[in-house]
Amino acid sequence: MFVYERPVRFEDVDAAGIVFFSRFLSYCHEAMEALCAPLEGGYAALIMDRRIGMPAVRVEADFEKPLRFGDVVRITVGVEHVGNTSCTFRYEMANATTGAVVARIRHVVVLSDLRVLQKIAIPADVRAALEAHLPGAPESTSKL
Amino acid sequence: MFVYERPVRFEDVDAAGIVFFSRFLSYCHEAMEALCAPLEGGYAALIMDRRIGMPAVRVEADFEKPLRFGDVVRITVGVEHVGNTSCTFRYEMANATTGAVVARIRHVVVLSDLRVLQKIAIPADVRAALEAHLPGAPESTSKL
Amino acid sequence: MFVYERPVRFEDVDAAGIVFFSRFLSYCHEAMEALCAPLEGGYAALIMDRRIGMPAVRVEADFEKPLRFGDVVRITVGVEHVGNTSCTFRYEMANATTGAVVARIRHVVVLSDLRVLQKIAIPADVRAALEAHLPGAPESTSKL
Amino acid sequence: MFVYERPVRFEDVDAAGIVFFSRFLSYCHEAMEALCAPLEGGYAALIMDRRIGMPAVRVEADFEKPLRFGDVVRITVGVEHVGNTSCTFRYEMANATTGAVVARIRHVVVLSDLRVLQKIAIPADVRAALEAHLPGAPESTSKL
Repeated sequence: MFVYERPVRFEDVDAAGIVFFSRFLSYCHEAMEALCAPLEGGYAALIMDRRIGMPAVRVEADFEKPLRFGDVVRITVGVEHVGNTSCTFRYEMANATTGAVVARIRHVVVLSDLRVLQKIAIPADVRAALEAHLPGAPESTSKL
Repeated sequence: MFVYERPVRFEDVDAAGIVFFSRFLSYCHEAMEALCAPLEGGYAALIMDRRIGMPAVRVEADFEKPLRFGDVVRITVGVEHVGNTSCTFRYEMANATTGAVVARIRHVVVLSDLRVLQKIAIPADVRAALEAHLPGAPESTSKL
Repeated sequence: MFVYERPVRFEDVDAAGIVFFSRFLSYCHEAMEALCAPLEGGYAALIMDRRIGMPAVRVEADFEKPLRFGDVVRITVGVEHVGNTSCTFRYEMANATTGAVVARIRHVVVLSDLRVLQKIAIPADVRAALEAHLPGAPESTSKL
Repeated sequence: MFVYERPVRFEDVDAAGIVFFSRFLSYCHEAMEALCAPLEGGYAALIMDRRIGMPAVRVEADFEKPLRFGDVVRITVGVEHVGNTSCTFRYEMANATTGAVVARIRHVVVLSDLRVLQKIAIPADVRAALEAHLPGAPESTSKL
């Protein structure tokens, strides 16, 4: 488990006055990047130097409460499964002030060579970083 | 069924060089807004004047192929179900040039009074606009 | 001169309920891309195939009126100057319904080899596409 | 003077592989919001509770170097002038790792009643928060 907090930004809301639904995925992606910080050079080096990415192949999201400008989102990330080439993340998003769950998201990615966009076996260091967050692993925290 | 096309924008890609996964939801929302154009004043008047919105409560997305800058997305929207307060949309997203399916998305919304963010019974005109796209209804097209 | 129209999107506003100021630049960029459509493969091929880009080196923007969801923006683009490696665009942004000017933007770009991010002499076909919009050239229109 | 740092996000780049020019304004806005943190409830309460905003009326930006995913931006904000209803911010944006200046931005805002979008005299607490960053004031730092 890994905990990541970030404020809702001024420009994250839509004309209904609440955080636009696609931004919830952006928030989760940020949390996932932060979870990968133990990699040498972090998630950015994985993408930019090694040209290895994690495109989504499946997302399921349940939206329970709205978020507004001024709220802080607290995202608890866990890794549900690490396969040969794929990984499944689970995110519980809560309002950091009230503690109320606002969304639950499941996110399946496939490790890919970005030069050719073909799936690859998960490299050992990436596997270790992901498996550290399988059920039963201790909690860590990040604010970015 | 309703068909909506839009180009991938210069700023829609991420550092992996492909359209960021959350943007697929933005594209679907645009298609849904276009589907609501028959409403008096369109989707914008629903939101801005009547203060009625359609927050998502559930999204399921399967991503099959990447999109890149220069691609045009062709989104076929259908309405799967119209309940008392909720509506389920289905989107098939394709690369307009190759015809290849790039994603399939299911999107459940709840009609809501935006002043209090409480669900409401679907107004008659909105119901008519949505039911026009239930299975069996004829196809219409929009480029925006 | 070149005219480009696009609606304000549901997600383009900020928590103040008006289009976020940075989005005005996004809208102008879209108009500039549309102006480049006469290039073989359009602006996308310039970027993706030839790896030639037009990074901004200077922007000046005067914001005169707000835009809201439901508004349509009408952008009139002109080319003020084409140098050896740089080009200066001018955009007058208006509310398409009322005709009121909402912003005036000046945008200087430098043609660049994106592989090394070094400036290059403007290629002949790009020069022709840009010079077609110098003062005195006839007006053309696009809705995208 | 006020210093604010934030990483470039995975989705902040464009198809040229560098941070899209409009995002520089988003980054500055974030820094400006952080500068307003001493207000009761911060910038969010100003917008959401008091319905007072700071729409831009003028922006000038000089872009000197590109930013890429993996970079961290270090923004030094100063207040150049506080008038009766307007305020002028200056931002020097640097690559936090190399120290190289990447952009310099000047940003003029007008304090506004968001209910009617009319300018208002700057409230005393807002004036104090802004004047604390006039030339000669001591430096403070925030990471958000």
